[in-house]
Amino acid sequence: MKLAVIGVGLIGGSFALALKQAKVASHVVGVGRNPANLKLALERGAIDSIAPDPAAAARGADLVLLATPVSHYLKILSSLSLHSTLIVTDAGSTKRDVIVAARSALKEKIAQFVPGHPIAGAEKSGVAAATPELFRNRRVVLTPLPENPAAAVDKVERAWKSCGARIAKMNPDEHDSVLAAVSHLPHVLAFALAHDIAARGNAAQLFSYAAGGFRDFTRIASSHPEMWRDICIANRDRLLEEIDRYSKNLGSIRKIIAAADPAALEKLFTEARAARQRWLDGEFES
Amino acid sequence: MKLAVIGVGLIGGSFALALKQAKVASHVVGVGRNPANLKLALERGAIDSIAPDPAAAARGADLVLLATPVSHYLKILSSLSLHSTLIVTDAGSTKRDVIVAARSALKEKIAQFVPGHPIAGAEKSGVAAATPELFRNRRVVLTPLPENPAAAVDKVERAWKSCGARIAKMNPDEHDSVLAAVSHLPHVLAFALAHDIAARGNAAQLFSYAAGGFRDFTRIASSHPEMWRDICIANRDRLLEEIDRYSKNLGSIRKIIAAADPAALEKLFTEARAARQRWLDGEFES
Repeated sequence: MKLAVIGVGLIGGSFALALKQAKVASHVVGVGRNPANLKLALERGAIDSIAPDPAAAARGADLVLLATPVSHYLKILSSLSLHSTLIVTDAGSTKRDVIVAARSALKEKIAQFVPGHPIAGAEKSGVAAATPELFRNRRVVLTPLPENPAAAVDKVERAWKSCGARIAKMNPDEHDSVLAAVSHLPHVLAFALAHDIAARGNAAQLFSYAAGGFRDFTRIASSHPEMWRDICIANRDRLLEEIDRYSKNLGSIRKIIAAADPAALEKLFTEARAARQRWLDGEFES
Repeated sequence: MKLAVIGVGLIGGSFALALKQAKVASHVVGVGRNPANLKLALERGAIDSIAPDPAAAARGADLVLLATPVSHYLKILSSLSLHSTLIVTDAGSTKRDVIVAARSALKEKIAQFVPGHPIAGAEKSGVAAATPELFRNRRVVLTPLPENPAAAVDKVERAWKSCGARIAKMNPDEHDSVLAAVSHLPHVLAFALAHDIAARGNAAQLFSYAAGGFRDFTRIASSHPEMWRDICIANRDRLLEEIDRYSKNLGSIRKIIAAADPAALEKLFTEARAARQRWLDGEFES
């Protein structure tokens, strides 16, 4: 299979490395904005060649993965001329907006676009952080379109499976709701805390007393700003609902603390810890 | 030195193990509520004997470490009769309330109490999780009292240094403000998220799509509920200020997202990431 990766960063680079390691991809062509990153992708063996633009990369490919920030999709997809055997998929963290963009760009060829989202990542960016193991035992959500032939979905599914991923299928609406709660909201909360501390007059003192709890809590505040800008704006209706819900819950906890109610506070903390433990124990795995 | 540890959990057990490993403590006596935990503390060599109550443990000791939830301090300290060479210190995460309790309990012997707080910990509890390495390169804040003789402070400082810790001194007021921002607030935020997700009808589905970012963000929501109940209530004036400040900042980010303002959002995320990176790079270490 000939693979084209548009955006050879952490996700695109890891997908390429995994498919080459699994001997599923015989040739990978990469496209990107950063020449130094593309050079490193060649050196690391993630890609075999560089194309000047997405259209050139797609021309000889069997599968295209879009792995740029989602705000670039419309322009990229509009520039492609899809030959009949080409399948295009993506790794975007939001799905409704991606599908709107894809329909607008691809029109009657929308059947060749299979939307996807690997739920894997790291606070590191760029191909330097890519690894063929990134998707092992991770979930990849596909949100197939009514127009997609089974064979197209199957092709994308097999590619991700060869990376070691577990496939789930959802409708795009459900995907965006679920991810707003368990991914997009925590990212905003972590960015908010890191930004708040950094903006204070005594930021240096505060940071100097921050320890392991703060480090882990804010790890995702080291995520890619451009990518997260796009996710937050694309999924803003759901994210705003989550922020409002969270703010309301935080307000309830505030009241318990202000009332100095030890029993209510301990109950809440105990329930939170127990639920998280059930999750760590794999009780919610399917 | 003969050491008495009241509350042989993660912190008390690790302090005992470290002082024994450094050959600073020749004998450690432990007191605790949980017989199975005390038995494990004996087996692990954290303690050499068990005393029936704090007063009995303190009788033959040179140094007492209080490492129970802080709400127990008043009762424990009131039960002690301090011989003249005994120094008592503690590991509580809040300091103003601890000092109030100590003054009330110890009265004219308050000079023998040196308040302290090791900024180390984990979401694990109990002596099972204790390790002599817990405090290595971690900060321990001492908030000495005007009544403390230099020799008393020095004794506590040397004990922590022999655990590999770095000592900082602050006034209790400053301690409680700094810790509210970088420790107590993130704990409340993490508990709030885990509790919110757990309370929903589709909690199982939501947890099943939660990934590494969620895991790290909520790690501190697995912290000891009773301990954190006490911290939140003891330091509630400062914590409420932090919650209000954070809520206001979250509201500002909400506005940027609602306005779908990509430049403002990317700027905020970039500043947050950059500040966190400077912290990771050790720029704020002293």
